[in-house]
Amino acid sequence: MSAKGAGKLVGVGVGPGDPELITLKAIRALGAADVIAHFAKAGNSSHARTIAAQHLRPEHIELPLLYPVTTELPKCSSGYRDALRAFYDEAAAAIAVHLDAGRVVAVICEGDPLFYGSYMHLHTRLAPRFPVEIVAGVTGMSGCWSAVGTPIAQGDDVFSVLPATLPEHELARRLSDADAAVVMKVGRHLPKVRRALTASGQLGRAVYVERGTMADAKTIPLADKPDDHAPYFAIVLVPGWEEPP
Amino acid sequence: MSAKGAGKLVGVGVGPGDPELITLKAIRALGAADVIAHFAKAGNSSHARTIAAQHLRPEHIELPLLYPVTTELPKCSSGYRDALRAFYDEAAAAIAVHLDAGRVVAVICEGDPLFYGSYMHLHTRLAPRFPVEIVAGVTGMSGCWSAVGTPIAQGDDVFSVLPATLPEHELARRLSDADAAVVMKVGRHLPKVRRALTASGQLGRAVYVERGTMADAKTIPLADKPDDHAPYFAIVLVPGWEEPP
Repeated sequence: MSAKGAGKLVGVGVGPGDPELITLKAIRALGAADVIAHFAKAGNSSHARTIAAQHLRPEHIELPLLYPVTTELPKCSSGYRDALRAFYDEAAAAIAVHLDAGRVVAVICEGDPLFYGSYMHLHTRLAPRFPVEIVAGVTGMSGCWSAVGTPIAQGDDVFSVLPATLPEHELARRLSDADAAVVMKVGRHLPKVRRALTASGQLGRAVYVERGTMADAKTIPLADKPDDHAPYFAIVLVPGWEEPP
Repeated sequence: MSAKGAGKLVGVGVGPGDPELITLKAIRALGAADVIAHFAKAGNSSHARTIAAQHLRPEHIELPLLYPVTTELPKCSSGYRDALRAFYDEAAAAIAVHLDAGRVVAVICEGDPLFYGSYMHLHTRLAPRFPVEIVAGVTGMSGCWSAVGTPIAQGDDVFSVLPATLPEHELARRLSDADAAVVMKVGRHLPKVRRALTASGQLGRAVYVERGTMADAKTIPLADKPDDHAPYFAIVLVPGWEEPP
């Protein structure tokens, strides 16, 4: 355990899924941590913990941060937002206890901590009060286009990350307006994503990727995918760079 | 040396600059390679090679790929494009000699191989003929926002990567249209980037970052930067996510 007063928060990116896509810096940060915190849904194990498992030691204090069950609340409701806000407040408070005791707390994060990650909710609450360090990680989208071997953007391409939750006309407009794009959180939105890609003339170069850096990765040109089943974390790659030098 | 016929091309991301931001997978790929190829400007050492230096061995065959000196040609000219195309053709041919001899060739790349990297020019030329593997890496932009500790995008944010070479009105329009953005290759375009951010009402949250993951990193709110000097690889972060839960 660290000396009192040396408390530090470390947001540690552990990469997109393949345990080998963790960095040396992340491994060193885990080795130097007293407490390992990780987000998970209640009843599920943390993906980040699974990725980093071989670097955890019995001496580590583990601090699971379990999302409240909010399935009964619509996502856009103020009740949902309030429940999440209270959860992040409590998670930050639980971590602050360790930081106040002088411990180094590593929050392990799938992908990159500051790119669409839950860690940011802790960061904004704790960074004003405690020393913080961030260890960048390989993002999920990099893991996906690497698994597929699809060059995504080059030169002066404009590249956009688009959530599949956008309205159809908005998705189509933004797909038309970017040279290259990644559509995230596809799940039940796949029929809409398909229509938006068709409207923007890009269905032919779209690639569907499921569990991109896992051993059971699935990838197929979207135009060839015969059904509209897709898990929440599936993504669609729209490579730019049609005229390479 | 590998057996004849086992030639394989491996695009290896070595991360954004900090030698610790290399992945275990990249280190293993370098260990398994016969040939290490890297891009550099003639007269300069390769950044990727500097990052990966401690993982290279005397037994590795090194293959530097030196960009032609094209400073006398305007970048948009067909002469410039022809010179570059011929260079990539020659580089791919030099690598193919080793692949045909059954060697494993690792092309080491700053950041992520398939995200705005020179490696892609080799990939498109060689992937149709040889087995290829990609090792994803931490991107330069992840390295930068992590060094600064700036949460960049969250939830349903639309995130865009914009080259500073875009015309001013186009930059301003796209900055207005994204929740979060990174402006790349700032260099001499900084005055224009500043004006576009002002026009889109985002100058106040823009962060200027120079040599993001190097020991001599410089970062400053862009509004506070007193001059318009910027190296080519400087970037400007425009964080989204103004109303976190």
